[in-house]
Amino acid sequence: MGLGIIGSGSWATALAKIVTDNGHGIHWWVRSDNILQHLSQRKHNPQYLSSASFDTSRITLSTDLQSVIAASDMLVIAVPSAYLEETFAGIPADAFTGKSVVSAVKGMLPEQNILLNEWLLSRYKVSLSDYFTVMGPCHAEEVANEKLSYLTFSGLDAERTARLAACFKTYYINTIVNSDVIGVQYAAVLKNIYALGAGIAHGLEYGDNFQSVLIANCADEMAGFLQKVGIQHVEVGVHADVHPVTHQKAANYAASVYLGDLLVTCYSLFSRNRTFGNMIGKGYSVMSAQLEMNMVAEGYNASRCINAINQEVKAEMPIAETIFRILWQHLSPAKGFRYIEETLI
Amino acid sequence: MGLGIIGSGSWATALAKIVTDNGHGIHWWVRSDNILQHLSQRKHNPQYLSSASFDTSRITLSTDLQSVIAASDMLVIAVPSAYLEETFAGIPADAFTGKSVVSAVKGMLPEQNILLNEWLLSRYKVSLSDYFTVMGPCHAEEVANEKLSYLTFSGLDAERTARLAACFKTYYINTIVNSDVIGVQYAAVLKNIYALGAGIAHGLEYGDNFQSVLIANCADEMAGFLQKVGIQHVEVGVHADVHPVTHQKAANYAASVYLGDLLVTCYSLFSRNRTFGNMIGKGYSVMSAQLEMNMVAEGYNASRCINAINQEVKAEMPIAETIFRILWQHLSPAKGFRYIEETLI
Repeated sequence: MGLGIIGSGSWATALAKIVTDNGHGIHWWVRSDNILQHLSQRKHNPQYLSSASFDTSRITLSTDLQSVIAASDMLVIAVPSAYLEETFAGIPADAFTGKSVVSAVKGMLPEQNILLNEWLLSRYKVSLSDYFTVMGPCHAEEVANEKLSYLTFSGLDAERTARLAACFKTYYINTIVNSDVIGVQYAAVLKNIYALGAGIAHGLEYGDNFQSVLIANCADEMAGFLQKVGIQHVEVGVHADVHPVTHQKAANYAASVYLGDLLVTCYSLFSRNRTFGNMIGKGYSVMSAQLEMNMVAEGYNASRCINAINQEVKAEMPIAETIFRILWQHLSPAKGFRYIEETLI
Repeated sequence: MGLGIIGSGSWATALAKIVTDNGHGIHWWVRSDNILQHLSQRKHNPQYLSSASFDTSRITLSTDLQSVIAASDMLVIAVPSAYLEETFAGIPADAFTGKSVVSAVKGMLPEQNILLNEWLLSRYKVSLSDYFTVMGPCHAEEVANEKLSYLTFSGLDAERTARLAACFKTYYINTIVNSDVIGVQYAAVLKNIYALGAGIAHGLEYGDNFQSVLIANCADEMAGFLQKVGIQHVEVGVHADVHPVTHQKAANYAASVYLGDLLVTCYSLFSRNRTFGNMIGKGYSVMSAQLEMNMVAEGYNASRCINAINQEVKAEMPIAETIFRILWQHLSPAKGFRYIEETLI
């Protein structure tokens, strides 16, 4: 299969390393000529994950997205969700006909409040049966260092998903397959909100005992949302183009793609979400925290997206809702957490 | 109610602080005259949690265990499980007649492979309906610093359990009540095994990605065991002296007393279990790790107890079983973890 990778950030670079280390050739779209030249000549990405070096004989590099799509049967999209519109500008509506897409995007399209599969369906008619995800607790830096990590591949067709996963199985990557292609994406969005919340709690000087209670309750809240959103996808037939998604009820939310990813994100002291939350907890405004960090933490937009979606899903989400109100509705962090305190079990 | 506290370690000291800060009087058995004198005169425990100071007007101190039991309607036992036999030597079989017991013991009696309630039943005829537990993710040091923490009280009678919990509710302690008095004790035992396992993984130089996958799978394995052990307690009528324990199926294993306690223990860099495991992972023998640390990590004995119990329960426990085999059957840590790797989801 002709595999294309779209993106040149740290996660795209990690995925390119995994697949090429595994002996597969790839078509790789990178954002700039500078990155392309550096990768060709020095065999590493100058900006991200620069410690990973590549066997460039297996890589066809290009800055022309349309040609990379045309050359590939299966496209791995690893562009931050906020840059998707910009990256795909000018790509014609039939570009993905007959192709499969693998999402490595951990986030929603911020303006439309939709997951990547919904965007690809409306824009490129990519059906859910041709859509797969690669998720799981995986700091790219540890992939570069070849520390054993687990990736979960999700898709409606078990056999095609397993074939895809096999391309990524190496001595430092184990692969897991499930069919909860919607739930795993929401889990990846939710964990950023909760990591931001763990940061706020740290900023408010709660201790380790409280953090463990908070994160356990985040896991519970996440499972409740995922179960409800799974059921809703069946009921309202959001993906009526394919057979109904009926498997979510049986998903095991302690699996690494759900709970593991939540843990690695919440307990990472270096995560942007946690750092951002910490500043909010210490009394910075959202604006000044963003200016100070010179970036937007994913959990910030995610909290607005999930809040909007939960108006329909109606899961009980006191933690995510309170974080939303702190970030977007000027609720004081201390007051918000006094409310959260009362809901924890 | 006349409340007695038995024990003078850090957890007993933390519990004595909580109850007396909440305005209750206590009878407090401490191990030595030295601790008694120091507490009376200097208002703090010289050996453990010495930063916590006490309103001694609320405390009747004694080194005579029988008189403390006689003076109390409700006894909180906070002695390490390995010292229970020694501490209670000479206490007559009818000493607990008409009294309730609250276990703060996180461990099993190592020789007999039994929980405290089973020991109290066989030795003092304390029935499960008069037996309660206080568990949850709670480093004693954070209690001394009055960092908000959550304690879960478990008992078969919801009203009596709630009355007990109310004695401990302060501005730095929130209380939760459930009825899973067997499951919460096993959770407290299991988490030490898993923390030891997280330590072994660290010693073997696995990274954060792997740790998160491992700990998520520990949570899953724990939930599977607790559900099975709950069902078994009903089937075989282990506690036939009281009404069958039928509630376990409904327990929410993401609650703080299960998942939260697992997280705070596994992610604590200072836990004895993790430190011990780390030495095992780095190649120390069990004997030399014990000599080096000058103590026994709870997870070491716990792994043997749980392994024996699981011969009957027959839950799927590849992680706990492998840790047992590493600690007790000379399986090499590296080989053991290569097996664990294959089981993770």
